[in-house]
Amino acid sequence: MRATFLYGAGDVRVVDVPEPTLVAPTNAILSVVLACICGSDLWDYQAMPDNPGGRGKGHEVIGVVESIGAEVIDFAVGDLVLAPFVCSDNTCDFCQEGLHSSCRNVSFFGGDGTPGAQAEKVRIQQADGTLVKVPVSVDSPLLPSILTLTDVMCTGHHAAVCADVSPGDTVVVIGDGAVGLCAVIAAKRRGAERIILMGRHTARTDLGREFGATDVVAERDEEGVAKVRELTGGDGAAKVLECVGTSSTISMALGICRDGGVVSCVGAPQYSEAPLNFGTFLRNITVTGGVAPARAYIDELMPDILAGTINPGKVFDQEITLDDVAVGYKAMADRQALKTIVRP
Amino acid sequence: MRATFLYGAGDVRVVDVPEPTLVAPTNAILSVVLACICGSDLWDYQAMPDNPGGRGKGHEVIGVVESIGAEVIDFAVGDLVLAPFVCSDNTCDFCQEGLHSSCRNVSFFGGDGTPGAQAEKVRIQQADGTLVKVPVSVDSPLLPSILTLTDVMCTGHHAAVCADVSPGDTVVVIGDGAVGLCAVIAAKRRGAERIILMGRHTARTDLGREFGATDVVAERDEEGVAKVRELTGGDGAAKVLECVGTSSTISMALGICRDGGVVSCVGAPQYSEAPLNFGTFLRNITVTGGVAPARAYIDELMPDILAGTINPGKVFDQEITLDDVAVGYKAMADRQALKTIVRP
Repeated sequence: MRATFLYGAGDVRVVDVPEPTLVAPTNAILSVVLACICGSDLWDYQAMPDNPGGRGKGHEVIGVVESIGAEVIDFAVGDLVLAPFVCSDNTCDFCQEGLHSSCRNVSFFGGDGTPGAQAEKVRIQQADGTLVKVPVSVDSPLLPSILTLTDVMCTGHHAAVCADVSPGDTVVVIGDGAVGLCAVIAAKRRGAERIILMGRHTARTDLGREFGATDVVAERDEEGVAKVRELTGGDGAAKVLECVGTSSTISMALGICRDGGVVSCVGAPQYSEAPLNFGTFLRNITVTGGVAPARAYIDELMPDILAGTINPGKVFDQEITLDDVAVGYKAMADRQALKTIVRP
Repeated sequence: MRATFLYGAGDVRVVDVPEPTLVAPTNAILSVVLACICGSDLWDYQAMPDNPGGRGKGHEVIGVVESIGAEVIDFAVGDLVLAPFVCSDNTCDFCQEGLHSSCRNVSFFGGDGTPGAQAEKVRIQQADGTLVKVPVSVDSPLLPSILTLTDVMCTGHHAAVCADVSPGDTVVVIGDGAVGLCAVIAAKRRGAERIILMGRHTARTDLGREFGATDVVAERDEEGVAKVRELTGGDGAAKVLECVGTSSTISMALGICRDGGVVSCVGAPQYSEAPLNFGTFLRNITVTGGVAPARAYIDELMPDILAGTINPGKVFDQEITLDDVAVGYKAMADRQALKTIVRP
């Protein structure tokens, strides 16, 4: 079958590999219907050292169950399902606490030279714990929005949950990528009254306004801090959702945060240390967030997608076939595309 | 009058200075009954660059009101009062939220070359907002415990509050200084079932056990992390109270913290960056805490001291007169004394 592998910075290719097989009785094999490219794929795409064996790519998928291991009981061949980007058993103590990302049987896509979800087929670990049935048909116009439940919508929601965004809040969202825009949806959904979106790509911030952003700040770094403080009476905002993950955005987030407030980080950190110090200590800033336990949120968010009250699928502005996956990576890296669907 | 000034590392002296006067109608002047030396004073004592003008020292005080400004209405000359280490108006929005440390009229002791509380007399800013009446007589044996409400007991409590220590919790307290020991009291008071105290000074950890610690870990750094993980079934503890503030203790706190847990920092950071990175991100660690809004907690903690259910005054193991203040600093810096009362 064809599958996407990254061999080094800028070198993403679709190659022929053996089809995945059931290697554990808890596995399932999906025939991929929709996959997509994640902003986090771009970090590797831009900086991964040469890797002759390649790294299998793709961790967001809707597919049809093609085969199941002997211990899989909740799914049958032919089911239309989604798999969030973290595979988990959904039964251990961490999963029961809603922290599926720390599941005692956690696994991620594309490790050990295996293909990921940007492929014709993909193996799912812990299928009963990981998969969720898609309650619409394969040709439903809701499918792209449901695909966001595999990662970006749940990640944006995680930012809002960790910051305890509540009715009436003023919230700052840093980043106009797909996660940032989904964080706007999540903040709005939880009742935030004012949502300040920080981003400089007008098409994206326009979508952010459609999703509920009340203000847009294009400035960055110290100018960004000054602008948000100006918009908030000098104090900054008590809830800051950091959806990028660079040194400059975490610094900006801390600068923007009101004393006693929360910086909720869901942008995968590209830094090794954060500027927490005596200055932030004096201001009682809380830094929280982390990788989203997406599985924990799907049951809550799916009804809103089915009802049409949230439309996160609008973050997809490009669709390509698997053979064109390199085009998709380049378009997202060049910011020509916001988020790209890959259809085998 | 005599007052304590620090002129550089190791150079602390009692000098003669003019008595403080009322410079604003919200001021009060206290005649000091009890002051003390804080662990945070030692950072300066050990490292402050030479400062010919000197820095006034002392920010924990019980005293008798000697004079009041025209706008002070809640206190009268002769009242026995305490002043927490942050002066605040107790009326602004931050104070109403319980974040007195970010009061819009916040001030600290000993700025601008003025004397602090390790002196015969001290000027209090925002007297109505800052001062609290001491409900016992000046010769009460409870006075040392009440003195801890000016800083260390409220600071330990703040660590427990920010971590939301709750009945049944397993809590790790890093540091066997006065703040760490008060954090043990606070964790116990909030119902923690297991309290692991990390420290290597037996006299202090013994007091920690008396305060409620169930386990003591003397190991540090990687060995300390391994030991706490061993004691907690491999997972670490969901609530870690960091009461030191060095690079090594914040790293250890993160290493000890269970996935999804909280590191609550009340040790004044001696670092400029903290090792928050992709690794902690994957584990959804929250870092919280900060300088304690002591004024917010005094009304809650005072009754427990008056009832004798908590005895934080036991952290004082040395008492000196003002003239011997240099002896007290040296004793604390050499770890001969845990915490030192200064009686003018």
